Amino acid sequence: MNSWAKQGVDLHLHVERTGGTGLRAGLEYALRAAVRGGRLEAGTRLPSSRQFAAELGVARNTVADVYTQLVAEGYLTSRRGGGTYVAGTPGRAMAPVAPDDEEAAPRYDLRPGRPDLGIFPRGAWLAATRRVLGAGPSDALTYGDPRGPLAARRTLAAYLARVRGVDADPDRVVLCTGYRQAVALVGAALARSGAVKVAVESPGLPEVSEALIRTGLAPVELPVDDDGARTDLLGALEAEMAVLTPAHQFPTGAQLSADRRAAVLEWCRRTDGLVLEDDYDGEFRYDRQPVGALQGLAPDHVLYAGSASKTLAPGLRLGWLVVPPCLLDTILAEKRLADRHSNVLDHLVLAELIDRGDYDRHVRRARSHYRRRRNELARALTGCKPPRRAAGVAAGLHAVVPLPEGTRDALARLDQASVAVNDMSRYTGAPNPNALVIGYATPPGHAWPAALTALIAALDS
Amino acid sequence: MNSWAKQGVDLHLHVERTGGTGLRAGLEYALRAAVRGGRLEAGTRLPSSRQFAAELGVARNTVADVYTQLVAEGYLTSRRGGGTYVAGTPGRAMAPVAPDDEEAAPRYDLRPGRPDLGIFPRGAWLAATRRVLGAGPSDALTYGDPRGPLAARRTLAAYLARVRGVDADPDRVVLCTGYRQAVALVGAALARSGAVKVAVESPGLPEVSEALIRTGLAPVELPVDDDGARTDLLGALEAEMAVLTPAHQFPTGAQLSADRRAAVLEWCRRTDGLVLEDDYDGEFRYDRQPVGALQGLAPDHVLYAGSASKTLAPGLRLGWLVVPPCLLDTILAEKRLADRHSNVLDHLVLAELIDRGDYDRHVRRARSHYRRRRNELARALTGCKPPRRAAGVAAGLHAVVPLPEGTRDALARLDQASVAVNDMSRYTGAPNPNALVIGYATPPGHAWPAALTALIAALDS
Repeated sequence: MNSWAKQGVDLHLHVERTGGTGLRAGLEYALRAAVRGGRLEAGTRLPSSRQFAAELGVARNTVADVYTQLVAEGYLTSRRGGGTYVAGTPGRAMAPVAPDDEEAAPRYDLRPGRPDLGIFPRGAWLAATRRVLGAGPSDALTYGDPRGPLAARRTLAAYLARVRGVDADPDRVVLCTGYRQAVALVGAALARSGAVKVAVESPGLPEVSEALIRTGLAPVELPVDDDGARTDLLGALEAEMAVLTPAHQFPTGAQLSADRRAAVLEWCRRTDGLVLEDDYDGEFRYDRQPVGALQGLAPDHVLYAGSASKTLAPGLRLGWLVVPPCLLDTILAEKRLADRHSNVLDHLVLAELIDRGDYDRHVRRARSHYRRRRNELARALTGCKPPRRAAGVAAGLHAVVPLPEGTRDALARLDQASVAVNDMSRYTGAPNPNALVIGYATPPGHAWPAALTALIAALDS
Repeated sequence: MNSWAKQGVDLHLHVERTGGTGLRAGLEYALRAAVRGGRLEAGTRLPSSRQFAAELGVARNTVADVYTQLVAEGYLTSRRGGGTYVAGTPGRAMAPVAPDDEEAAPRYDLRPGRPDLGIFPRGAWLAATRRVLGAGPSDALTYGDPRGPLAARRTLAAYLARVRGVDADPDRVVLCTGYRQAVALVGAALARSGAVKVAVESPGLPEVSEALIRTGLAPVELPVDDDGARTDLLGALEAEMAVLTPAHQFPTGAQLSADRRAAVLEWCRRTDGLVLEDDYDGEFRYDRQPVGALQGLAPDHVLYAGSASKTLAPGLRLGWLVVPPCLLDTILAEKRLADRHSNVLDHLVLAELIDRGDYDRHVRRARSHYRRRRNELARALTGCKPPRRAAGVAAGLHAVVPLPEGTRDALARLDQASVAVNDMSRYTGAPNPNALVIGYATPPGHAWPAALTALIAALDS
């Protein structure tokens, strides 16, 4: 039984008001139609006749008579102890419902880009929600600044400066719902300003190119090698913006080398070019010294984008942009039209987590959790026949595994074992680039050993 | 002191690794620059030298020496009981920060479209969050269906059917971030399908027209009278879609009459026209019998849009669309590109509130709260000299107050008393349509009597 039913339900019925017995007949008809049509589900408790009569402005007896009639007809039932309920209507089956996601869930999910949600800090999140709801002035939850609440932007700006070397003024922080929205906003603002071409990394996320095309921009491919994106080639592309993943190229895992960083900065200054920096997993670095955000070196040219999708959970849809002063107004115009502003409550909760140190603690814990997994994956791969190598794993949540013989057989074996990984061709558009992209963060702890075993078995050729 | 500092902080520093004393000098330089540049705020606790050394892969003494040096230079301080902190840097002032909203907050906010956030059910929200976080499988928080989680769509579909007469199949419910996003998604999908003209109510929300123009559509004005939008004129406009507020026209408060409902349905069928139904305050009706959503009468032609912005809080950004089958794929393509999907956690919390009856209880309580205010406002207005009338108040959270003498003087007096209301001309584009639009829901309980007094004083002419 649904507990809400205890208090009666709010109910819309279209009752023709033709007075007297007409009203009674109208109510009877409307209730019957609502039950028959499935709008009132079986088991729903109806309001008491007194409550319903007051609501409709009719005599209580009218409602009571209608209930009695419909109980007699089998549309409603009376239960001992009081209450009138909607009876089952055997003629009507539930409408078929599509699966919750486009794809059926695989047994072992090793697709990149998803964190282990088993370590989501539920207790800390809940405690922070309690503090925000308890302490915040209630008008924090009304319509507000398109950038999001200032308190949250202040905390985030200080965090990004401290951890990622971002030159972040709270005035230029725009809280958003994640990288996807960041691309949509930046793309729309750029297209409106008359830009045409945008350089995108290849391999890279096809969704980014698709989103840019939708805004009217033309993505042009920028090759990637072991030193990251070939920013030395930017001059020849005549693009107005470059979308880059400098800290940990997605998906190759390369870090943009010092020369290439210098090249992109020089390109920005020479051509007044812009960079959209996707710092999607900047918090997760393992062996080497972290490289700060490119944005810190050229805050007037670089739009910095980050999110809590890898550190906390994608389902929260918490992201942010740090925008050069010259672009702030146009980005905010897009944000206002897109959704006014982002969720205030959850961004305040995130700020509370940062302020109390819970976020830093969680990221540290997550980092050692993922480092351990990365090590286990790398070790297991070397035991394959032939031995396999995990590339691009100095940081992040995924590894590239080259398969010189091609991916076809391995993908068939993985599919049979219900292990989901991504084929590198998803990111290149080219067939068979002979590598898999494996997200080792995704499985919850209890599923990881079996997922690793299944993966390794399928890679033994 | 920030409590997070107790556990040490995550810190990004760009340290040149040139080995030996070079490394020490590099760390010293990087820390000094971070403090001087403001990236490390005064009062921040640094990691212990042991922790920091491990992180950087250097000897502990190296870090300890650097700390000692920078304490000597005044960049850092050591506190009794341990811990190294960033000292204040008198040379650097905080960057000036713009106000949190575009407008300074008025003393009495009587602008329409905002609920009383003082009655936001904090306890119920928090309890529902606890249940969702405790009970939900952790993978609910990963990337998912662009429509949002099925469980939340099921609950919402049953609610909308029950309360608003919506023909709502969970498969065709698209959870979104509010009406603004609904307009952006529908507008983009329509423009992409080749549509050109969209009829919008006049008076109506200028932001809707602006958003439609951005997607490439051309809004054309549909007049409004006491029977709601002049849907009898739709045939002459040659529009592909009409954006309507049938239950309670915004801002006039008129209810779309039976004839006009028939006219729009006839137009839909004859021209294969579409309606975007903005049911922005459908839950709040006071005296008369509620009219169900138009969508229930023509689910293949009407896109139904609703939100929790009036019932709970705008800052949650919780909204939904119910979409005809023929438009589902194109709307979902837009949603994917806009932000993948909406916040999963908060939509599950809302569903939990609905399932437990907390939402119905809250809406009932809010309804009698706002009905009381509406009555007080109407009574107070009749006491003005000359007596004033509150129009369009059978439902919703706002009233239209005609001022036959024009609004200029009253607006000046209201401004002086710091009472914010809207001028009807905001919604017509025409100068001086001689009415004010007053949101009586907005002030918290303690501020309402004074707000009402200030309003009435300014309307005495």
